[in-house]
Amino acid sequence: MEGEPILRLRIFNLNCWAIRYLSKRRQQRVRLIGDTLRQEGFDLVLLQEVWSEQDYSELKVKLAGCYPFSHYFRSGVIGSGLCVFSRFPILDTLLYQYSLNGYPYMLQHGDWFCGKSVGLVVMKISGIIFNVYVTHLHAEYCRDKDAYLPHRLVQAWELAQFIRHTSKAADVVLLGGDLNMHPDDVGIRLLRGWTGLQDAFAEAMHFEGCKNGCTLVPDNCFIDKSELLPFPLGIRIDYILYKAISSFTVKCEELKTTTGRAPGVDIPFSDHEAVMATLHIQRQGQPAGATLGTADPALADVVTEARAEVGAGLRAARRQRYSSGRMAVLALLLLLLQAAAALATLAGLGAEQPFPKLSFCLLAFLALGVLVLATALHLFHTMEVKMLHGTEDQMWMVLRALQERPSEG
Amino acid sequence: MEGEPILRLRIFNLNCWAIRYLSKRRQQRVRLIGDTLRQEGFDLVLLQEVWSEQDYSELKVKLAGCYPFSHYFRSGVIGSGLCVFSRFPILDTLLYQYSLNGYPYMLQHGDWFCGKSVGLVVMKISGIIFNVYVTHLHAEYCRDKDAYLPHRLVQAWELAQFIRHTSKAADVVLLGGDLNMHPDDVGIRLLRGWTGLQDAFAEAMHFEGCKNGCTLVPDNCFIDKSELLPFPLGIRIDYILYKAISSFTVKCEELKTTTGRAPGVDIPFSDHEAVMATLHIQRQGQPAGATLGTADPALADVVTEARAEVGAGLRAARRQRYSSGRMAVLALLLLLLQAAAALATLAGLGAEQPFPKLSFCLLAFLALGVLVLATALHLFHTMEVKMLHGTEDQMWMVLRALQERPSEG
Repeated sequence: MEGEPILRLRIFNLNCWAIRYLSKRRQQRVRLIGDTLRQEGFDLVLLQEVWSEQDYSELKVKLAGCYPFSHYFRSGVIGSGLCVFSRFPILDTLLYQYSLNGYPYMLQHGDWFCGKSVGLVVMKISGIIFNVYVTHLHAEYCRDKDAYLPHRLVQAWELAQFIRHTSKAADVVLLGGDLNMHPDDVGIRLLRGWTGLQDAFAEAMHFEGCKNGCTLVPDNCFIDKSELLPFPLGIRIDYILYKAISSFTVKCEELKTTTGRAPGVDIPFSDHEAVMATLHIQRQGQPAGATLGTADPALADVVTEARAEVGAGLRAARRQRYSSGRMAVLALLLLLLQAAAALATLAGLGAEQPFPKLSFCLLAFLALGVLVLATALHLFHTMEVKMLHGTEDQMWMVLRALQERPSEG
Repeated sequence: MEGEPILRLRIFNLNCWAIRYLSKRRQQRVRLIGDTLRQEGFDLVLLQEVWSEQDYSELKVKLAGCYPFSHYFRSGVIGSGLCVFSRFPILDTLLYQYSLNGYPYMLQHGDWFCGKSVGLVVMKISGIIFNVYVTHLHAEYCRDKDAYLPHRLVQAWELAQFIRHTSKAADVVLLGGDLNMHPDDVGIRLLRGWTGLQDAFAEAMHFEGCKNGCTLVPDNCFIDKSELLPFPLGIRIDYILYKAISSFTVKCEELKTTTGRAPGVDIPFSDHEAVMATLHIQRQGQPAGATLGTADPALADVVTEARAEVGAGLRAARRQRYSSGRMAVLALLLLLLQAAAALATLAGLGAEQPFPKLSFCLLAFLALGVLVLATALHLFHTMEVKMLHGTEDQMWMVLRALQERPSEG
């Protein structure tokens, strides 16, 4: 392993949009993805939104020849949707489920049910230890008024912390996934600043694909054009990030994206474009400089900015916790009042008037329903407050440490 | 740092049983714990069941002089209950919430609401990097018919995996907590076998305290004696475990437990006994042998045994998922039937008979209530199945790896 040999690694990343019963032409597309992966023979394939375990099993059977090693990460009600196929043995895996991931009552968004997570697979290729992370963060449904920003920032923070704490024995760290953040968003800057990961698109010596590396583009026939109106070229939210931890260098020789359709056919793989990177990994004489974090002097600013957003989310969560708690108390009072009225009637008071049994029952059930729902909401928002508060605290601790030893990271 | 100097570290571990409104003489005991910690001047204090953040804040204020560094881990509805006080700076923290932790509808047990987790704090003492873990696993309410065994095993497995993946850059690993497992239980053997952690009680050169190191003893006035009838001496479920990862050795010079009351007063700290260890940490010339796991040939047997229990839990969870799903479908059918009856009445059919509005409404609300609850249960058990299945898979992967390279660990 000593000396100059370059390890060349080809990586494929795609949000597959394979939601059973909902995604258009799902089975056809999954077959297409499998066929392409088999033909192209990548080294490492990172997939998101493979919600159906059956789709995974079919891919596994189809790809058994060229990608003999694979892992499917299970979590949440529907699953994490994350899976990895590899030409090289997977030595170990770990799943970390983000502590916040939207709201169970936002059924139309559904993120909560997916148990959004980051999956880690550890591999050893040519004697080099790779920690490969695959993830999918909470979607952004409205950029102007993004109610999920604090949750996505907590996820970005937990992702960065998870990578930092688990990658200390790795030689090379790779992260692929749908981060649901534009390249300049605070969450990306936080993730990159706090982990030192580099953006394959920005570093690529050669690029081919959608302009600006976009992965949600209007040319894709599954995209709702109206959603991309503010971004006529599209947006870039799917990434391959990397860094060398110990005495290795990683370079991105080439980055490609699909361009609204899969190569050689008339439909795309998914509503997202695939990102394909060719990395060169080489051992160098002495350990690389920055290992754990970066010495980026702007990091404190980024953490401060992210912490302010998390703080705003915390205040909103506290308001929701308060109002759901108040609603539960009101429902309880109404029930008690009704119980008193029922007792009074039983005791013979007001017997001269007819007792409105039906409306009484309806009202009681309504109050009971509100009580149960409001209590559940109150508990949920209490958890939300705890996690936002905990993240705010952790960020504060990091800020203090950064100020004390600004160059250590 | 080269050479022979021995670092002597005194560690205090206690499940504080500080549940607001429920735990007896809570405030008095928390004051007592604070006073003792201040007097004794340990190096590191690991506490569990500090459910009230106010108790933590009071301890923090009281201990600011001798333990200037501390961290409180927030999670779940009530909190994780975990906190750490330290004489030495805390460099970094991470919280991992276990994916399974009992059932929300088991209100009398309440574990689900606590968001049981493992907290990690990273410290550097005399140039030695310590990864200190504090945790509290799901309680055992009935040893003969332990419905929570699969969940506790998933937690033990996730704890082991979390420690293995996050401790690779550490010199020394310490774990303290209430593991809710007897020393020979499969979960403890799994945790110790898969991480290589050593039991301070078993290794201690000098021991003082309750016989067999028990931490739940009949002499404790807060203990329900009837629960300990099968174990007249008590049981040991609180642990301090340790291991050296790199070129260090760790020895347990002394282990102590309290014996049913706090030193010098007539009440105990808690319903659990405190565990106090004095460790000697010394750098040695060459790296220690086993680093990541142990070469214990019995490990495969332990993993197999644990996997069988997880598999039994998986089958039970599948049955519950099925029966809650069936209940939801039945409730939906009843509702549809009622809707048809109501429509028929509106259309004038059966107008010769009086329509029983009240019982009709009661039945409809009952069906609706059952539908909502059964659906929620179905979703919950679906998640449970996913996580148990995922753990079973991971264990299988490890078994395969152990069989392929039995001595590597």
